[in-house]
Amino acid sequence: MADLQVVADPGTQQIVVTRSFAAPRELVFKAFIDPDAVRRWWGQRDNETIVDQLEARAGGRWRFVQRSPDGNENGFHGVFHEVTAPGRVVYTFEWEGLPGHVLLETVTFEEQDGKTQMTDSSVFQSVADRDGMLRSGMESGAAESMDRLDEYLAASR
Amino acid sequence: MADLQVVADPGTQQIVVTRSFAAPRELVFKAFIDPDAVRRWWGQRDNETIVDQLEARAGGRWRFVQRSPDGNENGFHGVFHEVTAPGRVVYTFEWEGLPGHVLLETVTFEEQDGKTQMTDSSVFQSVADRDGMLRSGMESGAAESMDRLDEYLAASR
Repeated sequence: MADLQVVADPGTQQIVVTRSFAAPRELVFKAFIDPDAVRRWWGQRDNETIVDQLEARAGGRWRFVQRSPDGNENGFHGVFHEVTAPGRVVYTFEWEGLPGHVLLETVTFEEQDGKTQMTDSSVFQSVADRDGMLRSGMESGAAESMDRLDEYLAASR
Repeated sequence: MADLQVVADPGTQQIVVTRSFAAPRELVFKAFIDPDAVRRWWGQRDNETIVDQLEARAGGRWRFVQRSPDGNENGFHGVFHEVTAPGRVVYTFEWEGLPGHVLLETVTFEEQDGKTQMTDSSVFQSVADRDGMLRSGMESGAAESMDRLDEYLAASR
């Protein structure tokens, strides 16, 4: 199921990540908004993910911290614009290492034959911001996170 | 002071509106987050603007309704990602007539010699969404709103 695709056309302000999971969409959706699930799959495998805040409703805030083995911490936060179970979440995203640079992320879940197709589309405030995200190693990071989510879903069944 | 500029380069997901106002930025900023101010300048002149919700803080929600003379209502809503007085507001924006289409708006205020330069940058989920906003008459609507804000600021001094 590791059919991850990352599309970032040159000159655009967008990154679209798609991935399928061998689980019904109710479970995939829940893994995005349940703090106990998020800390098990979000981010890099050798880091600890601390879910500082996760209010999954329109206007709710979220904040996750990645703690590396040597104790470095990286915070990420945003607000939810929309949380519509089990099909769609829209939220803002800001890495606290680059304050003031915000993106808008729309994640949708579609189910067919018990499998779920996830589409995660991010739009950035500028092409430079989008290109910076790509240079940060976002693609391999997303692949690792999505693999971890796949494993989490398999273990939860 | 009607130096409105609307920049929307073809093929991009962005609209940037700039406008200057003959007022210090504290006052311009306040006009964006004060419900009593917003209902006096936001939207078309011949409509009534109802400020249903305006929680100007990270995670706060906003909802404005435009009521036309014949009683038609158009709702708009979103959430605040950042509210940093007096320089910057970042929020989401959705017209309820086209549900599910969201944009991320960043408004900054810079002051020089007692005048304020406003930059309002919107990024859309797609080029088609951005082009739809342009076709909706957004440019003349923004011009009217900005003129009304200018008049409101002049009357408030």
